[in-house]
Amino acid sequence: MSKGKIVLAYSGGLDTSVILKWLLEQGYEVYAYMADIGQKEDFAAAEQKALKIGAQKVFIVNMKKEFVTDYIFPVFKANTIYEGRYLLGTAVARPLIAKKQIEIAGEVGAEYVAHGATGKGNDQVRFELSYYALNPRIKVIAPWKNTAFLNAFKGRTDLLAYAEKHGIPTKQSASKPYSEDDNLLHISHEAGILEDPGHECDESIYSHTVSPEKAPDTPTKIKIQFKDGLPVKVVNLGDNTVKTDPLDLFEYLNQLGRENGIGRLDMVENRFVGIKSRGVYETPGGTILHAAHKDIEGIAMDREVMRLRDMLSAKFAELVYYGFWFSPEMDFLMTAINKSQELIDGEVTLKLFKGTAYPVARTSPSSLYNQDLSSMDIAGGYNQEDAEGFIKINAIRLMAHKNILDRKK
Amino acid sequence: MSKGKIVLAYSGGLDTSVILKWLLEQGYEVYAYMADIGQKEDFAAAEQKALKIGAQKVFIVNMKKEFVTDYIFPVFKANTIYEGRYLLGTAVARPLIAKKQIEIAGEVGAEYVAHGATGKGNDQVRFELSYYALNPRIKVIAPWKNTAFLNAFKGRTDLLAYAEKHGIPTKQSASKPYSEDDNLLHISHEAGILEDPGHECDESIYSHTVSPEKAPDTPTKIKIQFKDGLPVKVVNLGDNTVKTDPLDLFEYLNQLGRENGIGRLDMVENRFVGIKSRGVYETPGGTILHAAHKDIEGIAMDREVMRLRDMLSAKFAELVYYGFWFSPEMDFLMTAINKSQELIDGEVTLKLFKGTAYPVARTSPSSLYNQDLSSMDIAGGYNQEDAEGFIKINAIRLMAHKNILDRKK
Amino acid sequence: MSKGKIVLAYSGGLDTSVILKWLLEQGYEVYAYMADIGQKEDFAAAEQKALKIGAQKVFIVNMKKEFVTDYIFPVFKANTIYEGRYLLGTAVARPLIAKKQIEIAGEVGAEYVAHGATGKGNDQVRFELSYYALNPRIKVIAPWKNTAFLNAFKGRTDLLAYAEKHGIPTKQSASKPYSEDDNLLHISHEAGILEDPGHECDESIYSHTVSPEKAPDTPTKIKIQFKDGLPVKVVNLGDNTVKTDPLDLFEYLNQLGRENGIGRLDMVENRFVGIKSRGVYETPGGTILHAAHKDIEGIAMDREVMRLRDMLSAKFAELVYYGFWFSPEMDFLMTAINKSQELIDGEVTLKLFKGTAYPVARTSPSSLYNQDLSSMDIAGGYNQEDAEGFIKINAIRLMAHKNILDRKK
Amino acid sequence: MSKGKIVLAYSGGLDTSVILKWLLEQGYEVYAYMADIGQKEDFAAAEQKALKIGAQKVFIVNMKKEFVTDYIFPVFKANTIYEGRYLLGTAVARPLIAKKQIEIAGEVGAEYVAHGATGKGNDQVRFELSYYALNPRIKVIAPWKNTAFLNAFKGRTDLLAYAEKHGIPTKQSASKPYSEDDNLLHISHEAGILEDPGHECDESIYSHTVSPEKAPDTPTKIKIQFKDGLPVKVVNLGDNTVKTDPLDLFEYLNQLGRENGIGRLDMVENRFVGIKSRGVYETPGGTILHAAHKDIEGIAMDREVMRLRDMLSAKFAELVYYGFWFSPEMDFLMTAINKSQELIDGEVTLKLFKGTAYPVARTSPSSLYNQDLSSMDIAGGYNQEDAEGFIKINAIRLMAHKNILDRKK
Repeated sequence: MSKGKIVLAYSGGLDTSVILKWLLEQGYEVYAYMADIGQKEDFAAAEQKALKIGAQKVFIVNMKKEFVTDYIFPVFKANTIYEGRYLLGTAVARPLIAKKQIEIAGEVGAEYVAHGATGKGNDQVRFELSYYALNPRIKVIAPWKNTAFLNAFKGRTDLLAYAEKHGIPTKQSASKPYSEDDNLLHISHEAGILEDPGHECDESIYSHTVSPEKAPDTPTKIKIQFKDGLPVKVVNLGDNTVKTDPLDLFEYLNQLGRENGIGRLDMVENRFVGIKSRGVYETPGGTILHAAHKDIEGIAMDREVMRLRDMLSAKFAELVYYGFWFSPEMDFLMTAINKSQELIDGEVTLKLFKGTAYPVARTSPSSLYNQDLSSMDIAGGYNQEDAEGFIKINAIRLMAHKNILDRKK
Repeated sequence: MSKGKIVLAYSGGLDTSVILKWLLEQGYEVYAYMADIGQKEDFAAAEQKALKIGAQKVFIVNMKKEFVTDYIFPVFKANTIYEGRYLLGTAVARPLIAKKQIEIAGEVGAEYVAHGATGKGNDQVRFELSYYALNPRIKVIAPWKNTAFLNAFKGRTDLLAYAEKHGIPTKQSASKPYSEDDNLLHISHEAGILEDPGHECDESIYSHTVSPEKAPDTPTKIKIQFKDGLPVKVVNLGDNTVKTDPLDLFEYLNQLGRENGIGRLDMVENRFVGIKSRGVYETPGGTILHAAHKDIEGIAMDREVMRLRDMLSAKFAELVYYGFWFSPEMDFLMTAINKSQELIDGEVTLKLFKGTAYPVARTSPSSLYNQDLSSMDIAGGYNQEDAEGFIKINAIRLMAHKNILDRKK
Repeated sequence: MSKGKIVLAYSGGLDTSVILKWLLEQGYEVYAYMADIGQKEDFAAAEQKALKIGAQKVFIVNMKKEFVTDYIFPVFKANTIYEGRYLLGTAVARPLIAKKQIEIAGEVGAEYVAHGATGKGNDQVRFELSYYALNPRIKVIAPWKNTAFLNAFKGRTDLLAYAEKHGIPTKQSASKPYSEDDNLLHISHEAGILEDPGHECDESIYSHTVSPEKAPDTPTKIKIQFKDGLPVKVVNLGDNTVKTDPLDLFEYLNQLGRENGIGRLDMVENRFVGIKSRGVYETPGGTILHAAHKDIEGIAMDREVMRLRDMLSAKFAELVYYGFWFSPEMDFLMTAINKSQELIDGEVTLKLFKGTAYPVARTSPSSLYNQDLSSMDIAGGYNQEDAEGFIKINAIRLMAHKNILDRKK
Repeated sequence: MSKGKIVLAYSGGLDTSVILKWLLEQGYEVYAYMADIGQKEDFAAAEQKALKIGAQKVFIVNMKKEFVTDYIFPVFKANTIYEGRYLLGTAVARPLIAKKQIEIAGEVGAEYVAHGATGKGNDQVRFELSYYALNPRIKVIAPWKNTAFLNAFKGRTDLLAYAEKHGIPTKQSASKPYSEDDNLLHISHEAGILEDPGHECDESIYSHTVSPEKAPDTPTKIKIQFKDGLPVKVVNLGDNTVKTDPLDLFEYLNQLGRENGIGRLDMVENRFVGIKSRGVYETPGGTILHAAHKDIEGIAMDREVMRLRDMLSAKFAELVYYGFWFSPEMDFLMTAINKSQELIDGEVTLKLFKGTAYPVARTSPSSLYNQDLSSMDIAGGYNQEDAEGFIKINAIRLMAHKNILDRKK
């Protein structure tokens, strides 16, 4: 007798294929679901594979546009970055995948959802928190945290044996000795041979960027235009290519980043589950966008708004990384971030060259830099003598403190 | 009759030479003081010039070592950076200069100190807050905020005319059409032709770094060792150069950075006096050190300590930038930062190449990354099944929130 | 010849009457302006006085309703409190007064505004920052920072002599030996005999609250209803008085607070100009409202939203206290605060008794407390066994840290 | 055969007595441990009971002094308070209890520790995080999260039946219909009939304070002296009682608080496990100490140190409440807090009356308030005219913002 319907986040790979079969064996009616968020994948082949294994139906959903406009752009608008370096490429994709999975569960009337993430990583948390937040009645099957499953599959060999036994096709090519996660924003490489953070990773591991050493010897210059903190136009100043559609624009930044070796990162980070891990990332277009956005804010954002926003940005990154995309605190932060971007308009010119995206010029209708002081419509303009009083009043407290310390001696 | 003794922060340039003479004309007994913090300067010539103009005495103080150990290293230990980009090269030098100036004032029995900073910038604040904090009874003469001085010297032409009239030698070579500040940590270029942030600055402006385009086509690999958050050894993995003395080590990082085109920055920043300005900076060694320190922290610092420290680092940068080095809040932050560095030990390997300092490997005795979980001396180790409870408890609040929203509809 | 028109914030008291006359002597055409924000004042008499002295016109503007809805309520919505204690009674009134003053300046075509605040306090900053923020072209005359004025009026005796000389009526009754600021929200007492923070202030100084010792021996019970963080109804559970209009409601809370001796505060605080001062405050209704609002948030606000909001509240209080009501950062904070209040609905019951407003019960449609866990519509409900995993995962980091420390020994 | 030794945190009550027996039945060798931290308890009777049930040995440890000096005082030094109201009475006791329990486990060679806290509360977390942090190899038995135990004991009736069956004495008096936790700092009342936050709790529930309505009609005046943020002397200004020993001093504050009805709190708070709960607390001495400490800081702490410390205090409270007393982040915060208290010296006079502790006067050698400006040893003193420049420079940014907004229209 059927235990009920379950929607499985399916990748087409060995793990989730085995899980699919295992769930069928457990008595579930399995719906496979694949989110197309820009990863390199043969979706048609994966669909056939899932159906062959026994999936009731396979849902393949193209969410690239939504991923760019509703997930990637809001994160870059927040100028946010995890532990000062990671651009959140995997983290920001998980809530979108989970959201559609919950919607499909609703459509097919499934009580269960399943995923193939392990019990040591961040993704399990991001998936499950999103599931629960969107549907508190959903039941989650996470085989990699299930004792029976863990006992049955102690390593890759067990998975392969099971696949062979059940006629699940496995790729002939040798599997990579580390794991990857790939989407429009980035690719991550981790675990396996990369696990030792003291071991430099081989050039062959990088796949979304050419090596800076092999990138062109001539810089590429581009101009990015922002409106309310969002990129609305990219112009290649060399060949006059222009992109304005969000998806086109972002894919073009990816292409430019890839060609110029931009966006590599090799770091040890803190997972939400309390352990540290080493990740190697490539975020070509995102790295360019981040540099440009920070630069336009430099000229267009009020200083004190920036101070407050920066406090919130660090928290924003943590929430995205930990998996709290769908949460009241995220709604709260998003409202604040959106407010901070109201005047973030203008253009940034960047030089892309062998691994760096270097802002070299910027203009904005929204801000006042030194040059404009004379033109500022202020009674009396900036009066240098005012600075004397400004400093003296600021010093009162320091002088008092010194007096106290001297008195104590 | 003498108005009393004054110690002038003297640079040897046109402005402070004119100020020196002007102060003499006002009736002060002027002591010229030059801080050697690594800037390119002919100190002997400057000394002669000051004496010729009429300085009572010239103090030239070599503070390079102190600058590195007591100012630069503490700032890099704090992992701090102003508005997400600026490494504080000018800001961190000002308190040291002011401190020695106050000490000299004490030695010669001067009631007054003077500086040549303008009334629109940050340096006036950094100097004067430091003066007042260290000696609340000191009196400050800042000619560029003095009405009489401002009326007499409306521009460079007036300064030159005054210099000629009083036999003050002026450099034959054309002055640079922008201003610079130079020390061991960095050089800044700003104002003049750089003032328009929409105008890309010319390659010729950069002087502390070769252009990334002209940097070597082969990466340089180095290893930096840290102890309690401080760099204690740099090894060039190519030629086995080793540096351990703080000043040597930092100068060597500068050399490596310079050769590899590392540490350029072109940004619009917010001054303490409420205006924005564009600065072009070169911080070769500092940029390498910052990347390495951040990387060692990634592996060696506890996550929650990092969260708290990051909150404080932003404030730390602001205090340094604004000029509050000598303040009770800075003492407070420094104590906290020092505590955070107690276990920040280990080694980082970096690849230096055409503008980037890229950490590629790191080891530390202080931290626990994923790889070590099995070896961690914990009862039961990391149990993947625990993650289920962890996530469910974290989700309780989100589910409650969803229930409330649904109920509201 | 006239120097032009000026709008003077006029109080009817000695200082601003002398200032009015002095401005006339300086050659200005003076418009007197009085903001009625609930202070105890004979506005008709003050008007006659100003006209007699020579004011071109007197504007008396009743802004009590606007004060409650647009200034007091937003501050209490933010749950904000300066340095942990002060409810911002004076601070929140200043921007409103300044705003109307600037509007009147616009109406009468005045280039100037003037106020009677001293150069050592916060009010000068609050007024002037508001003036400049609302009209960057405005010119401000602040006699108490004007050298000529300061030289002419070195103390109260000079003011009285000047008043007598110019036929300015002065109150027969002896002036209070300290200064007060009075409005709908509070009264402050400071300076003069109160200046010594080590000297307990006399009971006679308090005027907006009865002494707790003389307050009724029986508690008063009330219920306050909130909607989106705003109080929308107050019910006296003893006599069934009901108030729903914002101004009525707030005045009623003031009455209840006054009768029950609630809202006194005696503290030393930090002024924006860097000095400390002692203030004695009475905020009867505000103290009740603050206690109730905090209590309804306890039950209705998500924990993590509360954490973020609390970070912002401290900054919010600082901005209000310092005078940055009209600023981009305040707009930013207000947007965030408003978002945080979206579900802050429900009712709080309080016991008012001899100086305390004690919340004793509360209900809300928006939150989930322990009692409801069984009824929460969650798959599986709260599972106690999940807590084990939750704790163990949280402990991983701590165990790792202990291992490292042990290894170091 | 024995499963090994276990140290049980034993209270003498029904729950832990049943647990003791149940652990024996499971095959453990049980050591009972009672921490005397000031709760009302017949320790001798409890010891007899535990031995009678079958405990191998009973450890009764008087930790009152350590509790005051190493736990309570550091928390009050941090000026910290959970969610703006709760003084952390239970939270701060748990790590101390756990620490000694781990030490005893070490002494007797026990592999296990056990506690009687439920799976829904904070105490389980506080105990277990402390256990794991202090000894990562320890194994924890928490019967209220154990499926077998939970199945066996579904309610109080089952516990009583089991007790009767095994000859465990149960109190004849009816048990209270809610739970309590009692120590030197406070007593908490929660759950049971108190669970509904909309139901006002009965006066009979309060046990550590008299009702404010029954407190004396005459205020008690006391003076508390602080040194480095710690209370070092309490003087009753009425009868000249003086206390200086930390434990004596704190117990005396408790007595004064109890008599004057001070320290009651009824609130809904957010637990670490994600649910809200209602707690009714009585913290008599702590409430007085908190008010006094905040007041001495008002006069003695630098403003900017206070701003930074306040950011950290909120986090400090969270860490204590959640159970992270023994953690690297707590060590970090404690170091910072200690630094902030270096000049927090002086005396505060408070009026205790019917529920309130009202600071009325304070003196300190460490601070500079307005009154002292004339005596401050500063060149030129405070110059009111400086305020003009101070305000104008602060306004620059606001004027620029207004210009931008106007330009946009």
